[in-house]
Amino acid sequence: MAKAVLTSKSDDFPKWYQDVVAKAELADNGPVRGTMVIRPYGYAIWERMQAELDRRIKDAGAQNAYFPLFIPESYLRKEAEHVEGFSPELAVVTHAGGKELEEPVVVRPTSETIINSFFSKWVQSHRDLPLLINQWANVVRWELRPRVFLRTTEFLWQEGHTAHATQDDARAYALRILHEVYEDFAREVMALPVLVGRKTERERFAGADATYTLEGMMGDGKALQMGTSHELGQNFAKAFDITFQSSTGTTEHAWQTSWGVSTRLVGALIMGHGDDAGLRVPPALAPVQAVVLLVRDEDGAGERAAAMVAELRGAGVRVQLDDRLDTGFGRRAVEWELKGVPVRIEVGPRDLAAGTVTLVRRDAAGDKTTVSVDGLGARVAGLLGEIQASLYRQALNRREANTIDAGGLAEVRDAAQRGFARVSWDSVRDSEVALAGDALTVRCLQRADGTIPSSSAEPGLIATVAKAY
Amino acid sequence: MAKAVLTSKSDDFPKWYQDVVAKAELADNGPVRGTMVIRPYGYAIWERMQAELDRRIKDAGAQNAYFPLFIPESYLRKEAEHVEGFSPELAVVTHAGGKELEEPVVVRPTSETIINSFFSKWVQSHRDLPLLINQWANVVRWELRPRVFLRTTEFLWQEGHTAHATQDDARAYALRILHEVYEDFAREVMALPVLVGRKTERERFAGADATYTLEGMMGDGKALQMGTSHELGQNFAKAFDITFQSSTGTTEHAWQTSWGVSTRLVGALIMGHGDDAGLRVPPALAPVQAVVLLVRDEDGAGERAAAMVAELRGAGVRVQLDDRLDTGFGRRAVEWELKGVPVRIEVGPRDLAAGTVTLVRRDAAGDKTTVSVDGLGARVAGLLGEIQASLYRQALNRREANTIDAGGLAEVRDAAQRGFARVSWDSVRDSEVALAGDALTVRCLQRADGTIPSSSAEPGLIATVAKAY
Repeated sequence: MAKAVLTSKSDDFPKWYQDVVAKAELADNGPVRGTMVIRPYGYAIWERMQAELDRRIKDAGAQNAYFPLFIPESYLRKEAEHVEGFSPELAVVTHAGGKELEEPVVVRPTSETIINSFFSKWVQSHRDLPLLINQWANVVRWELRPRVFLRTTEFLWQEGHTAHATQDDARAYALRILHEVYEDFAREVMALPVLVGRKTERERFAGADATYTLEGMMGDGKALQMGTSHELGQNFAKAFDITFQSSTGTTEHAWQTSWGVSTRLVGALIMGHGDDAGLRVPPALAPVQAVVLLVRDEDGAGERAAAMVAELRGAGVRVQLDDRLDTGFGRRAVEWELKGVPVRIEVGPRDLAAGTVTLVRRDAAGDKTTVSVDGLGARVAGLLGEIQASLYRQALNRREANTIDAGGLAEVRDAAQRGFARVSWDSVRDSEVALAGDALTVRCLQRADGTIPSSSAEPGLIATVAKAY
Repeated sequence: MAKAVLTSKSDDFPKWYQDVVAKAELADNGPVRGTMVIRPYGYAIWERMQAELDRRIKDAGAQNAYFPLFIPESYLRKEAEHVEGFSPELAVVTHAGGKELEEPVVVRPTSETIINSFFSKWVQSHRDLPLLINQWANVVRWELRPRVFLRTTEFLWQEGHTAHATQDDARAYALRILHEVYEDFAREVMALPVLVGRKTERERFAGADATYTLEGMMGDGKALQMGTSHELGQNFAKAFDITFQSSTGTTEHAWQTSWGVSTRLVGALIMGHGDDAGLRVPPALAPVQAVVLLVRDEDGAGERAAAMVAELRGAGVRVQLDDRLDTGFGRRAVEWELKGVPVRIEVGPRDLAAGTVTLVRRDAAGDKTTVSVDGLGARVAGLLGEIQASLYRQALNRREANTIDAGGLAEVRDAAQRGFARVSWDSVRDSEVALAGDALTVRCLQRADGTIPSSSAEPGLIATVAKAY
């Protein structure tokens, strides 16, 4: 139906992506290079992501707070690797209040430096630990090749920052966030399978001892890093003097973590589930799970449709009524397909006379069934669970079909043109620079059983190599 | 109990305010002049404010979206009064990505210019109207005399921006937001009485035709502007070319509104309800409505306390358990008083043996009662409603006691030293500049019956004059 509306995914994936962003009214480009306007429907999806992530973050014991956007330039320089990593991307305020500033201030690219300068004040005793803080904020990293949602000069995210008494406690917390917050959210809410592993030294965060990552496969076979959780060791604690008195009276540096996910997840949603008719939003995430589409308001159809909306809402379904009868039915149906609403309920006077409505599932193209209006609420609520599972299964099948066990560098290069190459880490360990020349990277390291290694030096590790966003 | 902890309100109100902010762990000053760190307890209060406001904003039909932090400098210049009003406060990014920018970008002080540049794209037909958008964001206005929560270089807020087909519709919406969102929130959630009126031409927003305001009286008798809603007329629509085709086929400029409240409301909470023992948070707002304070864990008191927490939670109370037995009971009690938690439930083995606990109300100093543990959940839930009403009544009584009907300029000057002076607008209309010399301003204009005039030229208006934050 929507074929004329969007570029086909297989013809031109990047163009298809831009089309979905525009036609589903998710976002626009801002006037300053690389910035974006998140439109109401895109923002409603982000709000649902925030709510689901925030609940999990609080369940993991972290508290929200807010730190300033502006960071004195000198703070960035306190951790050597960190400043080297972020310098090329910084936006700098040199004038304010009509004057040139004595010290320029940086617009935060991430908040390790400013948050840790406060941790240094707040942490005195082992009783103050663990200190578990999260913030929802905008950050700025000047982008040379921006792409809406995926790489934008300004993006929205959450960044967690914690301090612990021991390395073990910090490591356990970084992994807890990775699994219980991010992996659980990706699978259960976004219906996206993810590889959960460890970054190589080359790919880890600037200033971290270890970076753990979630990698999803997008519709074109490329990898998208969907979230990261870092062990910072004592690097920032030493740079910012975060010390505490231990229970035995000694003075120790804290062990730290940081972790974040961003509006990039909206990009993951588009590229992880979208099809040639537009977005497909998993029910657990969808701001609108079902739309009741009034075909014509004759023979009391309008009233019946409103009653159905009430019944669905009572059954816990996030539902919207579309009674814009001055817009053609076909055009409205295409709009809801573009927006990826999981279930469409078409209500017309002819069907109603027979006591039925038409249910259309967004996860299975062309799947229309005629069902009785009796028990509609329970039926739709049940259907949402099925659609959630079906979208996950489709994404998993696609990933499995496009993941190849490769024997050596040549096979890796070949397989990574279409998807993920799984290869022994030993056989590519010395080839990361060479792979980078072909725009390929090691996305993560895992043990053979899929669990996370405690070091990249462990024997028998598997590297997943792919092109990436 | 907390007398030694805080400066007394009557001795030194500004020092008392700073003390509450620090001791209740609401905020810290940031390293860049005028910025602030909102600490977890302060942020939890702001999150509750956001949730209550957001629900009301959505009920009024507006949708959330997000627009860029960075605005091209040229955008600001498109509306003459607007740029004149904001120029002295702008922070300007001149360098980014390691280079000097061709056009400097401004860090948004408010988003009229960038949002309206998109409204110009999105609005084509009368069918696109009204367009009702809200955004939650940080904004930056360089402050020469910063004060945490009240006037900060960076603050958090919501800003609504709407476009309408007619002036009447825009005016009605600006007033709807004022009453149904802001006034309702101030009274019902924050338990603060507010004067709702119209700003004089001198005091209105830069670029608006009319500004409506909420003015609260703080503990020292000064006024705090707690929120504003503006009629922008067609000023921005003309500057940004927001036109639509009317139902009769003519091309018209849209009529607009904008409206906002900010983290300044946390300052209103402190100064509107605080006392010499610290903050007092109304139950409808409080992140923690009741704390169960375990005195000693003997004879199963710890288990009983945990069971009470479960019962209270079941009764819909936001409750927290304090079983930090390594900290003295007195110190913990003072901490919860400082944080203004409405109800403290002290659970000790001696009371429990008699089947009772001690209830302490934060709204009435020293009000301790011994109550049966049976039916505690329902009792506390009921008590929260009483406390909410009592805090509102106390604030209203204070405002009434410090509001004086003044006959002329001399009486106005005198009365405004201690509170609000109510005076005929006709008698001070030409004295706004003179009053400003004494740091006094007309906070708002109202009709004699308290309703909002449709113009400052209406006969018989009452002006409220006060010192203000």
